[in-house]
Amino acid sequence: MAHRIKDIAAALGAEALGAADISITGVAEPAKAGPGDLALAMSERYAAGLAEGAARAAVIGPGMDWQALGLEAAIVAPRPRYAMAHLTSALDPGPQIAPGIHPTAVVDPSASIDLGAAIGPFVVIGAGVVIGRNARIASHVSIAEGTVIGDDALLHAGVRIAARVHIGHRVIVQPGAVLGGDGFSFVTPEKSRVEATRESLGKASAEEIEAQSWTRIHSLGGLRIGDDVEIGANAAIDRGTVADTVIGDGTKVDNLVHIGHNCRIGRDCLLCGQVGFAGSATLGDRVVLGGQCGVSDNIEIGSDVVAAGATKIYSNVPAGRMLMGSPAVKMDTHVEMYKALRRLPRLAKTVAELQKAVFKSGGTP
Amino acid sequence: MAHRIKDIAAALGAEALGAADISITGVAEPAKAGPGDLALAMSERYAAGLAEGAARAAVIGPGMDWQALGLEAAIVAPRPRYAMAHLTSALDPGPQIAPGIHPTAVVDPSASIDLGAAIGPFVVIGAGVVIGRNARIASHVSIAEGTVIGDDALLHAGVRIAARVHIGHRVIVQPGAVLGGDGFSFVTPEKSRVEATRESLGKASAEEIEAQSWTRIHSLGGLRIGDDVEIGANAAIDRGTVADTVIGDGTKVDNLVHIGHNCRIGRDCLLCGQVGFAGSATLGDRVVLGGQCGVSDNIEIGSDVVAAGATKIYSNVPAGRMLMGSPAVKMDTHVEMYKALRRLPRLAKTVAELQKAVFKSGGTP
Amino acid sequence: MAHRIKDIAAALGAEALGAADISITGVAEPAKAGPGDLALAMSERYAAGLAEGAARAAVIGPGMDWQALGLEAAIVAPRPRYAMAHLTSALDPGPQIAPGIHPTAVVDPSASIDLGAAIGPFVVIGAGVVIGRNARIASHVSIAEGTVIGDDALLHAGVRIAARVHIGHRVIVQPGAVLGGDGFSFVTPEKSRVEATRESLGKASAEEIEAQSWTRIHSLGGLRIGDDVEIGANAAIDRGTVADTVIGDGTKVDNLVHIGHNCRIGRDCLLCGQVGFAGSATLGDRVVLGGQCGVSDNIEIGSDVVAAGATKIYSNVPAGRMLMGSPAVKMDTHVEMYKALRRLPRLAKTVAELQKAVFKSGGTP
Repeated sequence: MAHRIKDIAAALGAEALGAADISITGVAEPAKAGPGDLALAMSERYAAGLAEGAARAAVIGPGMDWQALGLEAAIVAPRPRYAMAHLTSALDPGPQIAPGIHPTAVVDPSASIDLGAAIGPFVVIGAGVVIGRNARIASHVSIAEGTVIGDDALLHAGVRIAARVHIGHRVIVQPGAVLGGDGFSFVTPEKSRVEATRESLGKASAEEIEAQSWTRIHSLGGLRIGDDVEIGANAAIDRGTVADTVIGDGTKVDNLVHIGHNCRIGRDCLLCGQVGFAGSATLGDRVVLGGQCGVSDNIEIGSDVVAAGATKIYSNVPAGRMLMGSPAVKMDTHVEMYKALRRLPRLAKTVAELQKAVFKSGGTP
Repeated sequence: MAHRIKDIAAALGAEALGAADISITGVAEPAKAGPGDLALAMSERYAAGLAEGAARAAVIGPGMDWQALGLEAAIVAPRPRYAMAHLTSALDPGPQIAPGIHPTAVVDPSASIDLGAAIGPFVVIGAGVVIGRNARIASHVSIAEGTVIGDDALLHAGVRIAARVHIGHRVIVQPGAVLGGDGFSFVTPEKSRVEATRESLGKASAEEIEAQSWTRIHSLGGLRIGDDVEIGANAAIDRGTVADTVIGDGTKVDNLVHIGHNCRIGRDCLLCGQVGFAGSATLGDRVVLGGQCGVSDNIEIGSDVVAAGATKIYSNVPAGRMLMGSPAVKMDTHVEMYKALRRLPRLAKTVAELQKAVFKSGGTP
Repeated sequence: MAHRIKDIAAALGAEALGAADISITGVAEPAKAGPGDLALAMSERYAAGLAEGAARAAVIGPGMDWQALGLEAAIVAPRPRYAMAHLTSALDPGPQIAPGIHPTAVVDPSASIDLGAAIGPFVVIGAGVVIGRNARIASHVSIAEGTVIGDDALLHAGVRIAARVHIGHRVIVQPGAVLGGDGFSFVTPEKSRVEATRESLGKASAEEIEAQSWTRIHSLGGLRIGDDVEIGANAAIDRGTVADTVIGDGTKVDNLVHIGHNCRIGRDCLLCGQVGFAGSATLGDRVVLGGQCGVSDNIEIGSDVVAAGATKIYSNVPAGRMLMGSPAVKMDTHVEMYKALRRLPRLAKTVAELQKAVFKSGGTP
């Protein structure tokens, strides 16, 4: 599908320069762009590639000279990444899921499916399920009894949604994600070694605790996922024990993230790849956790916390804090500790020299 | 389904107080409980919510005054979490999987399926597979040739079980788990850089090792999963190379856990979310690894070891040890080291002062 | 299927000793081997088990005395693990996927499927897909529009391949892997807290940044997977934003690995279990990352880098380096720092004693 430069600029709220009637059909890196592509040359560094490619039009940054770059037309994007959001949205063909219900789908007669919804091959929909307006459900998805899917939701292939889950509007779920699995919750008849260890901070004697097997605590709670949430490929979010596990509106969850039972995640958070929550954690709004972060159970994390990748959070965190390290500390503190650690071997030498100078005998005083 | 307070108490082996003939149909947090719910008010903190809710009956802790809390009936649970196991088991409706074999399922004629088993839509069952009594297999599960599934097993939607896997009785597998994938095992014709690095502890010269491609070692071994095991959503457990990978009876494996080929895990272990085993590790019984723990290959870990979340285990661990950190050390040692590290920037300052005082010139002595 | 010792030896390019006409049907550990098994006794330690088992033939290491071990025949393998690759390849029956297209598969009429390909039950193949010669596609796989699968590829059950992905020849994909999911890429209309944090290295004031929601950057790029690649169970590899995400020839990716959008991975790399790439990283050739390693976004890692398990890489790495720790440092440096850290509590005591000796008053000088 072709788009005119002037129309794209208008959609972005950006300025169009030059031959704004030129049409493009895709976007490309400057060096690889063909004459039908809109080159992405938002910085001088990227713009250098325009000479290698054949783009007639490009998105450029403020203050760049489009004519000197050999372009016929340009769009000036004051905030390049935000422009990318609109551009890519306009050009994304989206997945092909034929309208209506595919004849191979197995749909319980008590399910309520909006006429505008698209349901792919081999989808299984359980009793009492409600599917919203224009929802698109790709092949091999299973949606168990009592679950509600909002309007304009997009569930990619092989997504597993358990019973009594509530999914908001405009939610996108990447392939293979599991929503509403049972919580990992077990108990021993008598006090277990883990409980004793926690209570004694590791000092409980092994002999005091008898060998026991684990009994399962079933998950009677549900899972509520807000509007405008995105869930990554093969992520796993467990249902609650009694109350629901909750993911707030606008929160984005990346691939292979694990969210244990009873967690309550706020709005507009970003949880990057392979982040893990042990369970029963509470997160504020706009929290950003880099990839592979971990959060212990029963932790409270305030709003606007940002943690670098692989930060491990074992205790509560006040709002607004920037974290790094394992165990997590303030970013400043981590940098200071780490610098000191790098210098530690040298420090040890200095201390040995001092020791020698002060205690001439060389022995312990 | 309604349950009388007196019957629940009897099932829990707990004491019923007050109007024990009252019936409840669910459980709820005290503040959210309706008149048909059994409120969970095992501690004073939770019991405070009873005033906000409408519960007539609650589970309370020993010594709590049920009448002062405004209840008509109460169950006294001496060990609240254990009571939860029984309560939630009684009230869990379980997944809806219709009895018999769904007409869309593709079952090899040589498979042997117990008459009491329930097989969902789009299930694929290979040659020679044996499915036990009352096993429940949800939609989209695939079970490859020669695999055995025990009695009362529950396989949730989209579980993948490879060929020649043995699954015990009463095993529960959450959606998307992969059991019996091929091991990650490759070799170069001549010594590879990794081997050289290991042997020389990182001192091998890059120039000594020639560039080579990897040849695959196929996995001829199987996977044996004991009785009463639970496997989490999207977990992955590989088959063995020659001998079987083994998961002992009663062991619980959480979401997104990775267990490499040839591992031998003992009984009644808890492996929390995103734990990873490189392969060929041996674990004792009742080992508990917190979320995101990692275990190098060819490691032996004794029984009753407990590791805090994100502990990375690079060497053997004797039985009964409590671990933390990366590399893993005893919990005590970790706390001591970490405290010293926090004080390290201050220590460095002190040493600088000492240096100045002792070596007046300020230069190195 | 039976194999003669002499034929196996010839295939391995190894020497056969004794009754080389004996046939075997499988391999086994020495202690568990039956008379029809080839025992794997490549080292003296393993060979000790031969007395317990009933093997008539074994693979042994150079210099071992096969007659003293009670064998009738032996194969001498100079490089045992490489011999394993050939042995296991010869003996692996492989997955049972019937030739041709299973009648339940849903194949778009515009797809082009080689006559020699095997397509299992409930497979879904989209418009314009091309499937190569002798490709084997197990049950429940979905392949979206425009994707190309090379010759001799083996896709295990439940693999999800998105639109416009290119998979090379002889690629093996374990169950549940997701190839070509959307990238995790979001932007706020104005500068977000994360951007401000990065720019200021954690010093940005929370008050300066306004609360905002995330807008999605769609993934218009594809995913290119080279020849001879293997992808592990439930791994997730995202497509690119504009250019393709690329996995080079011969690279092996283990279970539950996460590769974010725009990554460019070289040839013959090994990425072990649960490794994670935030996105836009560039890797050289023959890089080996142990389990649970993490790589920040926009990182460049040179060829022949080796990182121990759980190494977290936050900055660029020159070719040939051996890494360990979090943040990653050279293996040597890590060992030195870690030793110093272990001795740190003792060092602190020494400094306190020095302080006392030098500043008699005990106060700060």
